[in-house]
Amino acid sequence: MAKIQARILRGFRDYLPADMIPRRAMFSKVEDVFRIHGFAPLLTPALEYSECLLGKYGDEGDKLLYRFEDNGGRDIALRYDLTVPLARMVAMNGGLTLPFKRYQIAPVWRAEKPGRGRFREFFQCDADIIGAAGPDAEVEILSVGVGILKALHVGGFTISMNHRGVFDGLLAGIGVEDPEKKAEVIRTLDKLDKIGQDRVMEILASEVGLPASSLERIAEFLSLEDGDLDAAKTFFDGDEVAIAALDSMASTLSLAQEMGIGDHLEVRLSIARGLDYYTGLIYETTLTALPDIGSVMSGGRYDGLMSMFGAPAHAAVGISLGVDRLYAALLELEEIERKESPTEVLVTVFDEESRTAAFQFTHALRAAGVAAEVHLGNTKKFGKQFRYADKKQIPYVAILGPDERAEGKVRIRTLADGSEQLLSNAEAIQTLASTSS
Amino acid sequence: MAKIQARILRGFRDYLPADMIPRRAMFSKVEDVFRIHGFAPLLTPALEYSECLLGKYGDEGDKLLYRFEDNGGRDIALRYDLTVPLARMVAMNGGLTLPFKRYQIAPVWRAEKPGRGRFREFFQCDADIIGAAGPDAEVEILSVGVGILKALHVGGFTISMNHRGVFDGLLAGIGVEDPEKKAEVIRTLDKLDKIGQDRVMEILASEVGLPASSLERIAEFLSLEDGDLDAAKTFFDGDEVAIAALDSMASTLSLAQEMGIGDHLEVRLSIARGLDYYTGLIYETTLTALPDIGSVMSGGRYDGLMSMFGAPAHAAVGISLGVDRLYAALLELEEIERKESPTEVLVTVFDEESRTAAFQFTHALRAAGVAAEVHLGNTKKFGKQFRYADKKQIPYVAILGPDERAEGKVRIRTLADGSEQLLSNAEAIQTLASTSS
Repeated sequence: MAKIQARILRGFRDYLPADMIPRRAMFSKVEDVFRIHGFAPLLTPALEYSECLLGKYGDEGDKLLYRFEDNGGRDIALRYDLTVPLARMVAMNGGLTLPFKRYQIAPVWRAEKPGRGRFREFFQCDADIIGAAGPDAEVEILSVGVGILKALHVGGFTISMNHRGVFDGLLAGIGVEDPEKKAEVIRTLDKLDKIGQDRVMEILASEVGLPASSLERIAEFLSLEDGDLDAAKTFFDGDEVAIAALDSMASTLSLAQEMGIGDHLEVRLSIARGLDYYTGLIYETTLTALPDIGSVMSGGRYDGLMSMFGAPAHAAVGISLGVDRLYAALLELEEIERKESPTEVLVTVFDEESRTAAFQFTHALRAAGVAAEVHLGNTKKFGKQFRYADKKQIPYVAILGPDERAEGKVRIRTLADGSEQLLSNAEAIQTLASTSS
Repeated sequence: MAKIQARILRGFRDYLPADMIPRRAMFSKVEDVFRIHGFAPLLTPALEYSECLLGKYGDEGDKLLYRFEDNGGRDIALRYDLTVPLARMVAMNGGLTLPFKRYQIAPVWRAEKPGRGRFREFFQCDADIIGAAGPDAEVEILSVGVGILKALHVGGFTISMNHRGVFDGLLAGIGVEDPEKKAEVIRTLDKLDKIGQDRVMEILASEVGLPASSLERIAEFLSLEDGDLDAAKTFFDGDEVAIAALDSMASTLSLAQEMGIGDHLEVRLSIARGLDYYTGLIYETTLTALPDIGSVMSGGRYDGLMSMFGAPAHAAVGISLGVDRLYAALLELEEIERKESPTEVLVTVFDEESRTAAFQFTHALRAAGVAAEVHLGNTKKFGKQFRYADKKQIPYVAILGPDERAEGKVRIRTLADGSEQLLSNAEAIQTLASTSS
């Protein structure tokens, strides 16, 4: 076999154990909250027919697809998100019982320019309810989101919500009806937090070409106080679309209050969300302790999108967790920590005569639910076994040398402080089982 | 957006909730056993440089790669297995603390002709110990395998083991030293179970071109009784390589006995394993109840393979679970069952006035750890809510109509037998929490 230099593609990464262990712990908590809320797991293939993906993400998205011809001449591509494959699956399974509540945690691939925190392979974590209109489905989606952030112990957080109907009303009121132009205005407003209101107004004037009267109306709209639905209703007096949107948000908010999750919600009329396909509620989430990392959880209602493959235009509402941001936040908040190994106890092998006893003790620890591993390899350098435990962040080391065995005991050393206990095997197992997670 | 017909690539599949729920339960048990044994999770990218994969799987394997040029002109391919990416990662991370014990559960892609039970995207589940020679590492690998099959409740099983040194001795004894020819003989012997001894002998004579005396020696070897290491030692008298291999197996077996897993092991000298890269122990596993599904767990020692990228030639031993076979076996043995939804309780909404109470009760159930969902949508057809629960295999339905609420109670119906209980909310939550998993 010719020797080839080992290298990894730019924009891709190996998740080594030190990151995989806390990441898996995080996902496990997330999945448990999905389960408690009755969301079922779904898995779709990594590869799809290109025609099923093309035209769904805009021209820019099409260019970012990992698209190629397979050996059979089929035009195929790696999935770009989890929503389009979901729609494809729903269209192919007409017999699905609705509402259909599913989640999916899986990698997606985008040939973006790699950069700080931007990868070509990254995980998405989405949950969606297909086939349920109305505020109750929205509260269910918000409820699972609140449950997840609480389970992860992220501290305080605010879910800022808005409704696309508010923009429909606002833009109709200033004569912007063309869908392309509407989308352009909304995408510009979505940049408020990033570039500030002055710059947004400049772009709306110079690039989108809105007249001064329209800019004035938008500025007035942006000056409405967050959360003051009454003021917003006065502003939109007579505008049925906007008023209906505000009423819909009020209903969602009121049901959320009754569910006990209202305190985490606020109405923020400037929230726009860049994506074109939202049709009702939209929301994003900021962590109180780490506002600068951006939204960690967002989504909204996208009725009709599911019809992209000719299936019925089911109502749909979804949530998407920014798992890379959440993982970074949890590390920073010290809610999780990097860990080289799942092992709680390294059972050392003092000499060849001690090997059997070491293996048997390891076996007994595992039977009691303690993550244990036994030293593998030669026993010439006993100190090396401790250095291994140290490097792998294994908290306890068990020693079963001739002296310990003569007494029918095992010595347990706590590496953090070097303290030791001489215990019977049964006592040691009990002690270690009670301290291990 | 142009309407495109929804379709899925041949050889690929959607895992719908009914299969994903039990599959995830299976993987969760598997991962727990890995953890208890100190194996850490690893995740490598789906895409690799083609040159890192080419030449590692033989000409046939090279042809089956999903290989293409990305937008930047790089020659890339989807991973074909989990072993080569592991070797690539080890070569790139020289500072890894050895022994390195990792597992990975992930899809791989092969452009094979799809057929019954053969897919182009399927999951592999591998664990390996890198950097540990000797029987102790082998017993660790066998131990995690035994632990997994026990945790999955597959019933009885036999791990049949052999050692590549036995073949080295046998083939050296009949003058077959050329690596290509050796591999050809081993691949032919690997087909014993499938095509029978007569056909194997025919192929060895006509296609491999072994003379009659060699065929006689092989036939004599195959007539050795399984497990009789003494008879094998007599047969190989004076052949140092084969004797060392038999002694190595005896050591592994003896340590395995002391670990309490010896009863699941047997020596079977005809086990060959098709892959070329094994250098020592090889093994495969048959379920007592379902011998016909083939090996559900196999692997062996492959010292040196890790050097494929120029890294040191670490000792290595691994295990690979046939997860699709195991899943099929567990369904057949009724150890797991297909399930449409994780939900234990559907909380119905009797009428619009009942919605708040229903949401609050759902919230309380979830807080008590019960997987619950609330009816979403209009309340016009109450019976439809029960049909939903039925279709989704949700075992309990909660009813909070005006009558129940007037009494301060909730009615819990068990769908399996139609029985009902009228309970206070607190009693109902307690009852449901104690019956839910």
